[in-house]
Amino acid sequence: MSVVHKFTGNKNIYDWDGVVVKAYEEEFTGVTRQVLIGEQDKSPNYEIRYFRLEPGSHSHKEQHPHDHGVVILHGRAKVQINETFQEVGPLDVIYISGNDLHQFVVLGSETLGFLCTVPANR
Amino acid sequence: MSVVHKFTGNKNIYDWDGVVVKAYEEEFTGVTRQVLIGEQDKSPNYEIRYFRLEPGSHSHKEQHPHDHGVVILHGRAKVQINETFQEVGPLDVIYISGNDLHQFVVLGSETLGFLCTVPANR
Repeated sequence: MSVVHKFTGNKNIYDWDGVVVKAYEEEFTGVTRQVLIGEQDKSPNYEIRYFRLEPGSHSHKEQHPHDHGVVILHGRAKVQINETFQEVGPLDVIYISGNDLHQFVVLGSETLGFLCTVPANR
Repeated sequence: MSVVHKFTGNKNIYDWDGVVVKAYEEEFTGVTRQVLIGEQDKSPNYEIRYFRLEPGSHSHKEQHPHDHGVVILHGRAKVQINETFQEVGPLDVIYISGNDLHQFVVLGSETLGFLCTVPANR
């Protein structure tokens, strides 16, 4: 069902109407996940999530069959894709193919925030 | 193949390394489309595009089986979904289900820019 999730946050905390803030993975502190478009909207093809990583934190180093389409919204990160490392910042676009090893590590004192699209079936 | 498209634009003109600016539809002026993640990156599940609409312009009023996942980056718009109209602005999220009639009309003097995700097969 079509829906508008109005942005209700501010430049420090991103929030949206009708979107809950979830923990990322149990053992990870400083990382949250908000599903902006997904199962709750009956989106059959893809999910669009917003991830927020506090300074000093990082995402899990992971490798899996599904791909990621990432757009950085704020902050800076060192992104690892297989054996390569690259610094990224606001509005940089990162496509991580399925089965490529990847990790985001926050750089500097600013909170990292990015959109991450994944296939619905994964 | 995994790839990083570095943002090479500024707040007035959004551009990315390795991403070309395309016309939207032949008869439409003031609207451009940039495929940030798509066929060129061998993305099998979804495409992520950036649309730029100049003040006074609008997208085609359309209805089709595939859905749209939209995140506004800058500017304001009146969005029509079927019989409803809503004003949207930066970071608002709009999910348009398949087969819902929809249109974006730019509001005010600022250029509208948004990310729009679609399934790869459509």
